[in-house]
Amino acid sequence: MKTRIGILGYGNLGKGTEVAVAAAEDMELAAVFTRRDPSSVKILTDGVPVVNVDEIEKWTDKIDVLVLCGGSATDLPVQTPRYAKLFNVIDSFDTHARIPEHFGNVDAAAKEGNKVAMISVGWDPGLFSLNRVYANAILPDGKDYTFWGKGVSQGHSDAVRRIEGVKNAKQYTIPKEEALEAVRSGKNPELSTRDKHLRECFVVLKEGADKDRVEKEIKEMPNYFADYDTVVHFIDEDEFLRDHSGMAHGGFVFRTGKTGANKENNHIIEYRIKLDSNPEFTTSVIIAYARAVKRLADEGVSGAKTVFDIPPAYLCTQTDEELRAHFL
Amino acid sequence: MKTRIGILGYGNLGKGTEVAVAAAEDMELAAVFTRRDPSSVKILTDGVPVVNVDEIEKWTDKIDVLVLCGGSATDLPVQTPRYAKLFNVIDSFDTHARIPEHFGNVDAAAKEGNKVAMISVGWDPGLFSLNRVYANAILPDGKDYTFWGKGVSQGHSDAVRRIEGVKNAKQYTIPKEEALEAVRSGKNPELSTRDKHLRECFVVLKEGADKDRVEKEIKEMPNYFADYDTVVHFIDEDEFLRDHSGMAHGGFVFRTGKTGANKENNHIIEYRIKLDSNPEFTTSVIIAYARAVKRLADEGVSGAKTVFDIPPAYLCTQTDEELRAHFL
Repeated sequence: MKTRIGILGYGNLGKGTEVAVAAAEDMELAAVFTRRDPSSVKILTDGVPVVNVDEIEKWTDKIDVLVLCGGSATDLPVQTPRYAKLFNVIDSFDTHARIPEHFGNVDAAAKEGNKVAMISVGWDPGLFSLNRVYANAILPDGKDYTFWGKGVSQGHSDAVRRIEGVKNAKQYTIPKEEALEAVRSGKNPELSTRDKHLRECFVVLKEGADKDRVEKEIKEMPNYFADYDTVVHFIDEDEFLRDHSGMAHGGFVFRTGKTGANKENNHIIEYRIKLDSNPEFTTSVIIAYARAVKRLADEGVSGAKTVFDIPPAYLCTQTDEELRAHFL
Repeated sequence: MKTRIGILGYGNLGKGTEVAVAAAEDMELAAVFTRRDPSSVKILTDGVPVVNVDEIEKWTDKIDVLVLCGGSATDLPVQTPRYAKLFNVIDSFDTHARIPEHFGNVDAAAKEGNKVAMISVGWDPGLFSLNRVYANAILPDGKDYTFWGKGVSQGHSDAVRRIEGVKNAKQYTIPKEEALEAVRSGKNPELSTRDKHLRECFVVLKEGADKDRVEKEIKEMPNYFADYDTVVHFIDEDEFLRDHSGMAHGGFVFRTGKTGANKENNHIIEYRIKLDSNPEFTTSVIIAYARAVKRLADEGVSGAKTVFDIPPAYLCTQTDEELRAHFL
C-alpha cells in the first residue's frame, strides 16, 4: 500500500510537495487542506479532494503523514504541535534560534498523540545541518563555513519593500567567489560578514519616490544591510516581473580540518547545492523524510525527530540489501 | 568513562586510527595488536601496550571497539567475521562487489557473539555512499556521477610495478576538469570512462629497461589503462621518493535531478573532499563511527551495520539538545 500524504497549506511549499509526491512511486496524495474556500483552490492532481482545514479531524484514518506547509513565523509554531497530536507530521520550521523551543512543544504533543513529528526538514535547516554534523564528527579540529545563494532572501526582500517609496523588491544573497576560493585553498581564512556575501537588490519605485534616499536607507539598514556590500538596481515593473520571478537558490557548507600527530594534514569537505526551484527542492527533501516518518511510526516510535535522528536508509524506497549492493 | 579502542594492524590505517583516537576527547587507545613481533612495533602513544594478535582473546573485557586495519583483499574477509564474535568491530572493507557477501559473513558472526560490527567505513565506501543515498532519495529522477582524485590508486600503481623493467611506480587518478564542469553546468552529460578521469604514471625504470615498451605496455593494459587517456613520465629514484610519497586524495559525488510538474527544474548536489592524507581521513571517519558502534552496543543491538543504518547524531560527542541548538 502506498503512503498516504496530506498537505496543509497550498502555497509554494504545498505545490512543491504535491509534485514531489507525484514523483515518489511509493506515495500518493490523499488530500490538500486549506484555510481558504476549497472551491477557490485548484490543484494539479486529478481526483484528490481539497478540504477546509476545519474538517481535518475526519481524516486521521486516511492520512499516514501530514506535510505542514505553513510559514515559520506564525503558522508552524501553532500548527505543528496542534496536528502532531492527531497525525504523523513533518514541517520545515526554519527559525534556527527557536528550534529548541519548537522541538519541545512538538515533542510533547507528538508523544501525547503517540505520533512521529519531524521538524526543520529542508536544506537549511536540513541537508546543510546534516553536513555540518557529519563533518564535525569526522574532523573535530576544524572550522565551519556556510554560504547561501545565489538566491532570493525573503526576509531581506520584505525589509526593502517596507521602505517608503518602494513598490516591489527582490534581494539576492550572493556568495563572494574570493571567499569561496579562500576556503577551498585550505587557508582557513577568518571571514567577516562583509567578506562572505554580497547583497544585490532589484527595486521598483513608486511614482515620485526619491531614488537616493531609498538607496541610502537600504544600504544603512542595520542587521539587514549595514554590514554588507550592497548593490542596488532600480528597474521598471516589466523587467522586475520578467527577470526576477524565479525561485532559484543554493549554497555551500564547508568544513576544513586538521589531522596528524602534529596536525600537519589539512582536509576540506565541501557540500554544494544549486537549485532551480527552492520550494521544489525543499519539498523533495521533505518527502524523502516523510518516508522515514512512516517507517518510524510503523515501528511504534513517537515524539519529535530531526534529520540527526534518522538513519539514511529510512529515506529510501530500496531494501537494505539493495542499498548495500548498489550504493555502498 | 572513555571508549576504549583497540587497533589490529599497525600500517597506515592503524597509525591513522591512533592519531584519530588521540584527537577524540571521549576515546582512549587500549592496545595495538600486531602479527609482527610486538617489540619491533613502535607506536606514538605513551604507555599503550603493543600485543601479539595471538593474545587478543585476553582483551575482550578491556576493549569497547576493535578497529580492523587490515587490507580488503585477504585480511578483512577473514578477520572481521573472526573478531566480530569476540569484540564490537569496525572495518573499512572496500571491495565494492564483495560487500553483500562480506556483510552476510560478518552479520552472522556478530549475532553469534552478540556484538555490533560495522563494515565498509571510510569515504568510498562510506561518505560517498551516504551522499549517493541521500541524494537519490531526495532526487529520484536524476543522474549520479562519482569522480576520484587527484590521488594515488594503489591497484593501478601495483599493476604498473608488475611490468617487466619497472623498479617503482605511482599512478594518479585525476578527474578531468571539463567533465566536472559539464556536470556542474546541469547538462547531464553522458561521460565515458575516458571522459571522466586521466591516469598519470610516474615510473622508475630498472637499469637497461626499454622505455618505449614499458610505456606501450602501460597504455595498452586492459581494464587498468586501455580505456583511459594515460600519461607516463619516467623519472629517477630521487625524484620519485621526494615528490611521490604523499598520500593526498579526494573526489566528488554529484547527483543532478529534475523536479516540477513538467520536470522543468534542475538541481545539482555536489559533495567534494580534498585530503592531504587518505589514511588519516579514512580513520577519522572510522573513529566517528566507532562512537556509534559503542552506542549501539550499549543499547543491546547486535549484527552487522553500514553507514546507511546509523543516525547521524550517533557519530557525535554532543547531546541531541546540543546538536539541535548548534548544528540544525
